Amino acid sequence: MEIAKLGEFGLIDRLTNDIQLKNESSLRGVGDDCAVMHYPDTEVLVTTDMLMEGIHFDLTYITLQELGYKAAMENLSDVFAMNGTPRQLTVSLALGKRFKVEDLEAFYRGLRAACDKWNVDIVGGDTTSSLTGLAISITCIGDAPKADIVYRSGARETDLVCVSGDLGAAYMGLQLLEREKTVYYRQIDELNGKIREAQKAGNDALVRHLQQEGARLTDFQPDFAGKEYLLERQLKPEARGDVVALLRERGIRPTAMMDISDGLSSELIHICRQSHCGCRIYEKQLPIDYQTAVMAEEFNMNVTTCAMNGGEDYELLFTCPIGDHAKLDELESLGIKQIGYITKESLGTRLIARDGQEFDITAQGWNPLR
Amino acid sequence: MEIAKLGEFGLIDRLTNDIQLKNESSLRGVGDDCAVMHYPDTEVLVTTDMLMEGIHFDLTYITLQELGYKAAMENLSDVFAMNGTPRQLTVSLALGKRFKVEDLEAFYRGLRAACDKWNVDIVGGDTTSSLTGLAISITCIGDAPKADIVYRSGARETDLVCVSGDLGAAYMGLQLLEREKTVYYRQIDELNGKIREAQKAGNDALVRHLQQEGARLTDFQPDFAGKEYLLERQLKPEARGDVVALLRERGIRPTAMMDISDGLSSELIHICRQSHCGCRIYEKQLPIDYQTAVMAEEFNMNVTTCAMNGGEDYELLFTCPIGDHAKLDELESLGIKQIGYITKESLGTRLIARDGQEFDITAQGWNPLR
Repeated sequence: MEIAKLGEFGLIDRLTNDIQLKNESSLRGVGDDCAVMHYPDTEVLVTTDMLMEGIHFDLTYITLQELGYKAAMENLSDVFAMNGTPRQLTVSLALGKRFKVEDLEAFYRGLRAACDKWNVDIVGGDTTSSLTGLAISITCIGDAPKADIVYRSGARETDLVCVSGDLGAAYMGLQLLEREKTVYYRQIDELNGKIREAQKAGNDALVRHLQQEGARLTDFQPDFAGKEYLLERQLKPEARGDVVALLRERGIRPTAMMDISDGLSSELIHICRQSHCGCRIYEKQLPIDYQTAVMAEEFNMNVTTCAMNGGEDYELLFTCPIGDHAKLDELESLGIKQIGYITKESLGTRLIARDGQEFDITAQGWNPLR
Repeated sequence: MEIAKLGEFGLIDRLTNDIQLKNESSLRGVGDDCAVMHYPDTEVLVTTDMLMEGIHFDLTYITLQELGYKAAMENLSDVFAMNGTPRQLTVSLALGKRFKVEDLEAFYRGLRAACDKWNVDIVGGDTTSSLTGLAISITCIGDAPKADIVYRSGARETDLVCVSGDLGAAYMGLQLLEREKTVYYRQIDELNGKIREAQKAGNDALVRHLQQEGARLTDFQPDFAGKEYLLERQLKPEARGDVVALLRERGIRPTAMMDISDGLSSELIHICRQSHCGCRIYEKQLPIDYQTAVMAEEFNMNVTTCAMNGGEDYELLFTCPIGDHAKLDELESLGIKQIGYITKESLGTRLIARDGQEFDITAQGWNPLR
């Protein structure tokens, strides 16, 4: 269905009419000049992100439902990274003319699945048009008791540096999707060239044959068997609210924390700079999934570089007092890995390779303005 | 200077490093995963807006500084429309490659001028790139004591309907700018045609002459004398926080309120629908500036249609108990006009023309999805 047929308010109504507010802090959602919230006992956390078609996502390999889910998770992840609880979300969309009502419904299905998973209310937004691609802006509001909030600036010398999950898989998933896309378009281009030649030669039978081949190519699903995990990490990331809950349950309070969206190197530098300290990270401690390692080998890439600089894993990077060492050991089987420790600022941010060599950690992560 | 030279974090630092937080509720601004706020005694208001180049603005006639100011004011206006006080703002920008650091600085100058005017803190955002045009997303956070918040749904039968300022001027300003742009491009097109012909004919002297004429055309400033108010309303709108303060000072509490961004007709329908009532609005009571009337005449447009349906005035539309009639009379000289009253829902939303004829009010305002 054409969006123009529903109009802005018809569309918003269709996408949001059955939303039930679940949080006590959500007083009023969609439908007025502002959403209204209530936070008498906790601090309010606000984060915002903008995602542009062609820069942050490619609709040739992510579906709108996956995109809605991912866009929400990226923002929830920022609230978890403050040791907070996400509560409300607003979403603004600018759409080119090619989008239909059904596309928006798919986006909202993904967005709502992510919000439902973490009990977050969609309380507002803006839906408008764009001359070209799709633009998405999400703002997430959360809360935390004042004493619980963890900033990037709290790391201290001798603190342990930890990460959740594993690193580099989302990046390898992206490489895999990009490769399949390139192969696919190359085949289409070659075929179109052959069709043009056959047409010039007046060989109608060959033209028909090639066109049938083209139809088969369009239906072609690349074989991602054995690489499903990499795709899932790229297309359906999860914000690690479970890790925040686990740490709280075990009585571990991080001194500094952030989520890994641009790559471990970049985030380590943020924490060290804002905490005025250095760090030593051990290559052999970096958590890397088997599929990531195999794929890096296949692409002839250094897997450590992928783990250090690949973005979009949305795992948590945090530091803890060294006294929590024993408690953290118990969490290793639950996917919390100690990868190094915090040092004096003058010692720099250093990676210790398997062979004992040391390197400066530099931010080679994703830079949208490069 | 190229943005890539500074990088994302260098750029953010350059744009935000001297920001001082002014509100008690702003605990932590730019520089972590989330901004942190504190609202123990009041409700929190959140509004968000997305502005796309080519849809919401045209950089051939609005400067980036004006655009920053306008983008902020549009969002502050939504908080005022809830009878609240804006406190914090986050801004996300996606930029095409043609933008330089100086352009961003101009945008931020405008944004900060608007925020400074209303004592609002810039606490966060996102700066990224876009394949084509400029995309802007702003979220504004404000607060209000629970009892003060005014929704769209509170209008009751016999309430008076009021508007601040005057209507239709921003729309006429846009028509004026569009006309000058069309005239300008037509002249450029004609000149380029003549140059191509002269080149074909090998008439170098004529080519040079025409090129000089072209240079003069580029420097040409259209004469807007006597129409400055219309341009100002379009390019530099003001959020009416002063009206909110005035009503409070005079002990007038609106029963329903919203800001006029899409046009009076559209906003009246919102209030009537959400309040389950109707209204009668008097054409002769509509506040229209002299320049708006003159311009409508020049464009051969119906000035009432412009006042009813022209958007972007950012004036306030509100309803008050009829008992406030005398107090409101006193405010007429301060630019608060009573334009009609609220009726039973079954009587519809009606405009009473000067000659006594009645018409249904229909939303012909700006629809970004049409």
